Amino acid sequence: MRPARRQITGFSNPTVKALRALREKKHRKAAGRFLAEGLRLLTDARECGHVPETLVLADRRDPHPLLTVLEEAVEAGGGEVIETTPDILAKITGKDNPQAVAGVFAEFDTRLAAVDRKSADIWLVAQALRDPGNLGTMLRTGDAIGAGGLILIDDCADPFSVEAVRASMGAVFTQAIAQARWDEFESWLRRDAGQLVAASLRDAQPYRGGPYAAPCFVMVGNESQGLPEDYEMACDLRVTMPMKGRADSLNAAVAAAVLGYEVRAALDGSPV
Amino acid sequence: MRPARRQITGFSNPTVKALRALREKKHRKAAGRFLAEGLRLLTDARECGHVPETLVLADRRDPHPLLTVLEEAVEAGGGEVIETTPDILAKITGKDNPQAVAGVFAEFDTRLAAVDRKSADIWLVAQALRDPGNLGTMLRTGDAIGAGGLILIDDCADPFSVEAVRASMGAVFTQAIAQARWDEFESWLRRDAGQLVAASLRDAQPYRGGPYAAPCFVMVGNESQGLPEDYEMACDLRVTMPMKGRADSLNAAVAAAVLGYEVRAALDGSPV
Repeated sequence: MRPARRQITGFSNPTVKALRALREKKHRKAAGRFLAEGLRLLTDARECGHVPETLVLADRRDPHPLLTVLEEAVEAGGGEVIETTPDILAKITGKDNPQAVAGVFAEFDTRLAAVDRKSADIWLVAQALRDPGNLGTMLRTGDAIGAGGLILIDDCADPFSVEAVRASMGAVFTQAIAQARWDEFESWLRRDAGQLVAASLRDAQPYRGGPYAAPCFVMVGNESQGLPEDYEMACDLRVTMPMKGRADSLNAAVAAAVLGYEVRAALDGSPV
Repeated sequence: MRPARRQITGFSNPTVKALRALREKKHRKAAGRFLAEGLRLLTDARECGHVPETLVLADRRDPHPLLTVLEEAVEAGGGEVIETTPDILAKITGKDNPQAVAGVFAEFDTRLAAVDRKSADIWLVAQALRDPGNLGTMLRTGDAIGAGGLILIDDCADPFSVEAVRASMGAVFTQAIAQARWDEFESWLRRDAGQLVAASLRDAQPYRGGPYAAPCFVMVGNESQGLPEDYEMACDLRVTMPMKGRADSLNAAVAAAVLGYEVRAALDGSPV
């Protein structure tokens, strides 16, 4: 028999307030929890072994077999399923048209020490990346190119923000995520094999056909400043994409993808 | 002697209301005007021959030689320079930290008939692209790969929205932009030489080393639906990027960039 479920119908309910607070970074950090929304994304998470601690559903929703599976998984895992109104769900997710379901997850371990560099031949690295959409897009691209994860250097957007989770299209659950200061990253990197490659304009060679080697760490910098010069100079390789027009740079997530796919092809032994 | 300038200090001033209304599509279309902001972007625009009809400045601003050049260009072109408070400027641009200057431009001709396909060897095409950030990022990438412009098929985000203009980083002024229905585009395309290439999962070959030919039209579809099957089947070539992880698609602007750079390399005669 299905357990009785908590129904919440009041905007001022403390649980609603606590869930809604997870849209703000300080409350996420205090709670060690983050929000993910949408049946597809939550199903991807479940299939990767991440079942939410709390699942919030709209009370007037269309039935869906994947939703039933998800509800059962949450309850089997000792989590709570809460039903509420579509209006309250919209308030929690901050989205006009919420995808009828949201989940609360414990944040992952993001210490660099938890990264096993040998588990993948490509890693993405972002320095001072400020846009959560770019961050989520890099996670999504990392999943596509078979990267092991994303290493965030210095002050980046929060990978557990609703916007980053959404843009990742589920890759927040498949990619390792680490956060570190530059000097911490550099000393970790040099402790073992690893080629650090920057998308750069300084003293750079063409990105196409570059001498990439696994494990290859592909690094892009801040959206407006790019990488600090000393970070670039500490790289094993600086490469540049052709810029045929007036602009002198690409969107950071685009640069990571163009370079990441090039490294993927090189490591797979595609002819240059 | 510098002409006297209009000073606006009231939020309810009709000019402030009219400028602010340009953040909404219906008002942009009614006025045939759009907003661009930031000294760098407006300087890029000026250098490409696009001088704003109206320039709005914060009255307490740091002097800057490029700003002086811009003010003089607007006044020489018969445009108006308006000074206002930083608060009002923030209200006009909808940005907390407006870049101290905004310009109003006449919208460009976006008829397909105005596109000269022979003026470039690559063109980007987007179908039902809904995110203005993705659209602006595609314009920026198009500038970088030496594309002639971006052709928008069916109902896309507005290329003249503040978000798209901002994400384009000035490429809205360097790339041709056309808007058309699919059947209109298809009959225009087939009237002359042109290879239509879709990023696709259906009956596709590897994107790397594909038989690309100029003028090459690189097409991506809607963020959630992808391209309609009949559109894909009307393409000369369907290519796919490796997807090594759980996800089955890339961000639309990322897909356009990875494929666009591959086509760029092929047309430049880089060895595959």
